[in-house]
Amino acid sequence: MSYQEQPLPAPQGATQAPAANFTGLAWVKMLVGAGNPTDCTVGEVTFEAGARNNWHSHPSGQILVVTAGAGYYQEQGQPARLLHPGEAVSIAPGVVHWHGATASSRFTHLAINPGISQGVATWGAPVTEAEYQAAHA
Amino acid sequence: MSYQEQPLPAPQGATQAPAANFTGLAWVKMLVGAGNPTDCTVGEVTFEAGARNNWHSHPSGQILVVTAGAGYYQEQGQPARLLHPGEAVSIAPGVVHWHGATASSRFTHLAINPGISQGVATWGAPVTEAEYQAAHA
Repeated sequence: MSYQEQPLPAPQGATQAPAANFTGLAWVKMLVGAGNPTDCTVGEVTFEAGARNNWHSHPSGQILVVTAGAGYYQEQGQPARLLHPGEAVSIAPGVVHWHGATASSRFTHLAINPGISQGVATWGAPVTEAEYQAAHA
Repeated sequence: MSYQEQPLPAPQGATQAPAANFTGLAWVKMLVGAGNPTDCTVGEVTFEAGARNNWHSHPSGQILVVTAGAGYYQEQGQPARLLHPGEAVSIAPGVVHWHGATASSRFTHLAINPGISQGVATWGAPVTEAEYQAAHA
Protein backbone atom coordinates (compact mmCIF):
# COMPACT_ATOMS: atom_id res chain seq x y z
CA MET A 1 0.00 0.00 0.00
CA SER A 2 1.47 3.34 -1.03
CA TYR A 3 1.45 6.38 1.22
CA GLN A 4 -1.49 7.88 -0.70
CA GLU A 5 -3.59 4.79 -0.17
CA GLN A 6 -3.41 4.88 3.63
CA PRO A 7 -6.95 5.51 4.89
CA LEU A 8 -7.31 8.75 6.82
CA PRO A 9 -8.67 8.48 10.36
CA ALA A 10 -12.42 9.07 10.73
CA PRO A 11 -13.24 12.66 11.76
CA GLN A 12 -13.55 12.90 15.55
CA GLY A 13 -17.12 12.44 16.77
CA ALA A 14 -18.45 11.53 13.32
CA THR A 15 -20.51 8.51 12.32
CA GLN A 16 -20.61 6.85 8.93
CA ALA A 17 -23.16 8.29 6.52
CA PRO A 18 -25.90 5.81 5.52
CA ALA A 19 -24.47 3.56 2.79
CA ALA A 20 -27.83 3.40 1.00
CA ASN A 21 -27.55 7.05 -0.05
CA PHE A 22 -23.81 7.28 -0.69
CA THR A 23 -21.19 5.83 -3.04
CA GLY A 24 -17.96 5.34 -1.11
CA LEU A 25 -17.28 6.30 2.46
CA ALA A 26 -18.60 9.48 4.06
CA TRP A 27 -18.89 10.74 7.63
CA VAL A 28 -21.43 12.95 9.38
CA LYS A 29 -20.95 14.86 12.60
CA MET A 30 -24.03 16.75 13.76
CA LEU A 31 -23.20 20.14 15.28
CA VAL A 32 -26.82 21.24 15.80
CA GLY A 33 -29.41 18.48 15.62
CA ALA A 34 -33.11 18.40 14.87
CA GLY A 35 -35.60 19.70 17.44
CA ASN A 36 -33.71 22.87 18.25
CA PRO A 37 -35.67 26.16 18.31
CA THR A 38 -34.32 27.47 14.99
CA ASP A 39 -35.84 24.52 13.03
CA CYS A 40 -32.43 24.43 11.27
CA THR A 41 -29.75 21.75 11.58
CA VAL A 42 -26.01 21.92 10.94
CA GLY A 43 -23.90 18.86 10.19
CA GLU A 44 -20.27 18.51 9.17
CA VAL A 45 -20.01 16.04 6.29
CA THR A 46 -16.68 14.54 5.19
CA PHE A 47 -16.38 12.54 1.97
CA GLU A 48 -13.33 10.35 1.38
CA ALA A 49 -11.72 10.80 -2.05
CA GLY A 50 -14.09 9.38 -4.66
CA ALA A 51 -17.13 9.39 -2.37
CA ARG A 52 -20.37 11.23 -3.15
CA ASN A 53 -24.01 11.15 -2.19
CA ASN A 54 -26.88 10.01 -4.44
CA TRP A 55 -28.96 12.44 -6.44
CA HIS A 56 -31.38 14.02 -3.97
CA SER A 57 -33.33 17.17 -3.04
CA HIS A 58 -34.36 18.96 0.15
CA PRO A 59 -37.91 20.15 0.85
CA SER A 60 -36.68 23.45 2.36
CA GLY A 61 -33.38 23.69 0.47
CA GLN A 62 -29.86 23.48 1.90
CA ILE A 63 -26.69 25.56 2.22
CA LEU A 64 -23.22 24.03 1.89
CA VAL A 65 -20.17 25.82 3.33
CA VAL A 66 -16.89 24.17 2.31
CA THR A 67 -14.36 23.85 5.13
CA ALA A 68 -11.63 21.53 3.79
CA GLY A 69 -10.42 19.69 0.69
CA ALA A 70 -11.93 19.79 -2.78
CA GLY A 71 -15.22 18.50 -4.11
CA TYR A 72 -18.08 18.91 -6.53
CA TYR A 73 -21.64 20.18 -6.43
CA GLN A 74 -23.88 19.43 -9.40
CA GLU A 75 -27.53 20.23 -10.11
CA GLN A 76 -29.42 18.06 -12.56
CA GLY A 77 -28.87 19.36 -16.11
CA GLN A 78 -26.07 21.71 -15.07
CA PRO A 79 -22.27 21.34 -15.17
CA ALA A 80 -20.58 20.31 -11.92
CA ARG A 81 -18.95 23.05 -9.85
CA LEU A 82 -15.54 22.47 -8.27
CA LEU A 83 -15.57 23.79 -4.69
CA HIS A 84 -12.83 24.80 -2.26
CA PRO A 85 -12.74 26.00 1.37
CA GLY A 86 -14.56 29.28 2.00
CA GLU A 87 -17.01 28.75 -0.87
CA ALA A 88 -20.72 28.24 -0.25
CA VAL A 89 -23.70 26.98 -2.24
CA SER A 90 -27.38 27.80 -1.75
CA ILE A 91 -29.65 25.00 -2.98
CA ALA A 92 -33.30 25.82 -3.67
CA PRO A 93 -36.09 23.61 -2.30
CA GLY A 94 -36.76 20.63 -4.55
CA VAL A 95 -33.69 21.07 -6.78
CA VAL A 96 -32.14 17.67 -7.55
CA HIS A 97 -28.38 17.61 -7.01
CA TRP A 98 -25.41 15.68 -5.61
CA HIS A 99 -22.18 16.61 -3.84
CA GLY A 100 -19.01 14.80 -2.97
CA ALA A 101 -15.23 14.64 -3.02
CA THR A 102 -13.04 14.75 -6.09
CA ALA A 103 -11.41 11.47 -7.08
CA SER A 104 -8.13 12.56 -5.46
CA SER A 105 -9.07 14.66 -2.40
CA ARG A 106 -11.05 14.39 0.78
CA PHE A 107 -13.85 16.99 1.00
CA THR A 108 -15.55 18.48 4.06
CA HIS A 109 -18.48 20.87 4.13
CA LEU A 110 -21.07 22.08 6.60
CA ALA A 111 -24.59 21.08 5.55
CA ILE A 112 -27.13 23.64 6.79
CA ASN A 113 -30.75 22.54 6.58
CA PRO A 114 -33.35 25.21 7.35
CA GLY A 115 -36.97 24.18 7.83
CA ILE A 116 -35.92 20.69 8.90
CA SER A 117 -39.40 19.98 10.29
CA GLN A 118 -40.50 19.74 6.63
CA GLY A 119 -38.13 16.78 6.14
CA VAL A 120 -34.45 16.23 5.45
CA ALA A 121 -34.16 14.91 1.89
CA THR A 122 -35.79 12.93 -0.89
CA TRP A 123 -33.24 10.41 -2.16
CA GLY A 124 -32.79 9.18 -5.74
CA ALA A 125 -30.36 7.07 -7.74
CA PRO A 126 -26.61 6.86 -7.19
CA VAL A 127 -24.35 9.12 -9.25
CA THR A 128 -22.98 6.78 -11.90
CA GLU A 129 -19.28 6.42 -12.63
CA ALA A 130 -19.90 8.14 -15.98
CA GLU A 131 -21.65 11.07 -14.30
CA TYR A 132 -18.91 11.28 -11.69
CA GLN A 133 -16.07 11.15 -14.23
CA ALA A 134 -17.82 13.82 -16.33
CA ALA A 135 -17.62 16.18 -13.34
CA HIS A 136 -13.82 15.92 -13.53
CA ALA A 137 -13.68 16.72 -17.27
CA MET B 1 3.79 48.95 20.78
CA SER B 2 4.38 45.43 22.01
CA TYR B 3 4.10 42.39 19.77
CA GLN B 4 0.70 41.55 21.28
CA GLU B 5 -0.67 44.97 20.45
CA GLN B 6 0.00 44.75 16.70
CA PRO B 7 -3.40 44.82 14.98
CA LEU B 8 -4.16 41.69 12.97
CA PRO B 9 -4.99 42.17 9.30
CA ALA B 10 -8.69 42.37 8.45
CA PRO B 11 -10.11 39.01 7.30
CA GLN B 12 -10.00 38.79 3.49
CA GLY B 13 -13.22 39.98 1.86
CA ALA B 14 -14.74 41.20 5.12
CA THR B 15 -16.21 44.61 5.90
CA GLN B 16 -16.38 46.30 9.29
CA ALA B 17 -19.45 45.46 11.37
CA PRO B 18 -21.68 48.48 12.05
CA ALA B 19 -20.15 50.41 14.94
CA ALA B 20 -23.59 51.31 16.32
CA ASN B 21 -24.23 47.70 17.35
CA PHE B 22 -20.72 46.67 18.45
CA THR B 23 -18.17 47.55 21.10
CA GLY B 24 -14.68 47.33 19.60
CA LEU B 25 -13.80 46.18 16.11
CA ALA B 26 -15.57 43.35 14.32
CA TRP B 27 -15.69 42.14 10.73
CA VAL B 28 -18.42 40.51 8.67
CA LYS B 29 -17.95 38.49 5.49
CA MET B 30 -21.20 37.27 3.94
CA LEU B 31 -20.92 33.76 2.48
CA VAL B 32 -24.61 33.47 1.52
CA GLY B 33 -26.55 36.72 1.43
CA ALA B 34 -30.24 37.57 1.72
CA GLY B 35 -32.60 36.81 -1.15
CA ASN B 36 -31.33 33.29 -1.78
CA PRO B 37 -33.95 30.52 -2.12
CA THR B 38 -33.32 28.99 1.32
CA ASP B 39 -34.38 32.21 3.13
CA CYS B 40 -31.28 31.60 5.28
CA THR B 41 -28.08 33.65 5.34
CA VAL B 42 -24.57 32.67 6.43
CA GLY B 43 -21.96 35.22 7.46
CA GLU B 44 -18.48 34.83 8.92
CA VAL B 45 -18.06 37.22 11.85
CA THR B 46 -14.65 37.99 13.37
CA PHE B 47 -14.32 39.91 16.62
CA GLU B 48 -10.97 41.41 17.61
CA ALA B 49 -9.93 40.67 21.20
CA GLY B 50 -12.25 42.59 23.54
CA ALA B 51 -14.91 43.21 20.88
CA ARG B 52 -18.53 42.10 21.24
CA ASN B 53 -21.93 42.96 19.85
CA ASN B 54 -24.75 44.71 21.75
CA TRP B 55 -27.52 42.80 23.45
CA HIS B 56 -29.91 41.74 20.68
CA SER B 57 -32.34 39.08 19.49
CA HIS B 58 -33.34 37.49 16.17
CA PRO B 59 -36.96 37.08 15.02
CA SER B 60 -36.28 33.58 13.63
CA GLY B 61 -33.36 32.67 15.90
CA GLN B 62 -29.73 32.10 14.93
CA ILE B 63 -27.06 29.39 14.94
CA LEU B 64 -23.41 30.15 15.72
CA VAL B 65 -20.66 27.73 14.62
CA VAL B 66 -17.26 28.65 16.06
CA THR B 67 -14.39 28.39 13.57
CA ALA B 68 -11.42 30.10 15.29
CA GLY B 69 -10.23 31.67 18.53
CA ALA B 70 -12.14 31.94 21.78
CA GLY B 71 -15.21 33.92 22.73
CA TYR B 72 -18.36 34.17 24.78
CA TYR B 73 -22.08 33.68 24.23
CA GLN B 74 -24.45 34.92 26.92
CA GLU B 75 -28.24 34.93 27.15
CA GLN B 76 -29.91 37.49 29.40
CA GLY B 77 -30.08 36.17 32.97
CA GLN B 78 -27.73 33.24 32.25
CA PRO B 79 -24.00 32.80 32.82
CA ALA B 80 -21.74 33.41 29.81
CA ARG B 81 -20.49 30.35 27.92
CA LEU B 82 -16.87 30.17 26.76
CA LEU B 83 -16.75 28.83 23.19
CA HIS B 84 -14.02 27.23 21.09
CA PRO B 85 -13.73 25.99 17.47
CA GLY B 86 -16.13 23.17 16.60
CA GLU B 87 -18.73 24.24 19.15
CA ALA B 88 -22.15 25.53 18.09
CA VAL B 89 -25.00 27.42 19.72
CA SER B 90 -28.69 27.40 18.77
CA ILE B 91 -30.44 30.63 19.76
CA ALA B 92 -34.23 30.62 19.98
CA PRO B 93 -36.31 33.37 18.33
CA GLY B 94 -36.60 36.45 20.52
CA VAL B 95 -33.99 35.38 23.10
CA VAL B 96 -31.87 38.39 24.11
CA HIS B 97 -28.13 37.65 24.01
CA TRP B 98 -24.67 38.88 23.01
CA HIS B 99 -21.52 37.25 21.65
CA GLY B 100 -17.95 38.34 21.18
CA ALA B 101 -14.27 37.66 21.69
CA THR B 102 -12.54 37.14 25.00
CA ALA B 103 -10.39 40.01 26.23
CA SER B 104 -7.24 38.24 25.00
CA SER B 105 -8.23 36.33 21.82
CA ARG B 106 -9.70 37.00 18.43
CA PHE B 107 -12.93 35.04 17.83
CA THR B 108 -14.52 33.90 14.57
CA HIS B 109 -17.88 32.19 14.10
CA LEU B 110 -20.32 31.54 11.33
CA ALA B 111 -23.66 33.26 11.96
CA ILE B 112 -26.52 31.30 10.38
CA ASN B 113 -29.84 33.16 10.17
CA PRO B 114 -32.81 31.08 9.04
CA GLY B 115 -36.06 32.86 8.16
CA ILE B 116 -34.17 36.04 7.26
CA SER B 117 -37.22 37.46 5.48
CA GLN B 118 -38.67 37.95 8.99
CA GLY B 119 -35.82 40.34 9.79
CA VAL B 120 -32.21 40.10 10.95
CA ALA B 121 -32.07 41.39 14.52
CA THR B 122 -33.57 43.72 17.11
CA TRP B 123 -30.71 45.64 18.72
CA GLY B 124 -30.44 46.78 22.34
CA ALA B 125 -27.89 48.37 24.65
CA PRO B 126 -24.13 47.76 24.55
CA VAL B 127 -22.69 45.09 26.84
CA THR B 128 -21.18 47.13 29.67
CA GLU B 129 -17.59 46.70 30.85
CA ALA B 130 -18.97 45.21 34.07
CA GLU B 131 -21.10 42.69 32.15
CA TYR B 132 -18.16 41.86 29.88
CA GLN B 133 -15.71 41.43 32.74
CA ALA B 134 -18.21 39.21 34.59
CA ALA B 135 -18.16 36.82 31.62
CA HIS B 136 -14.44 36.26 32.27
CA ALA B 137 -14.89 35.51 35.98
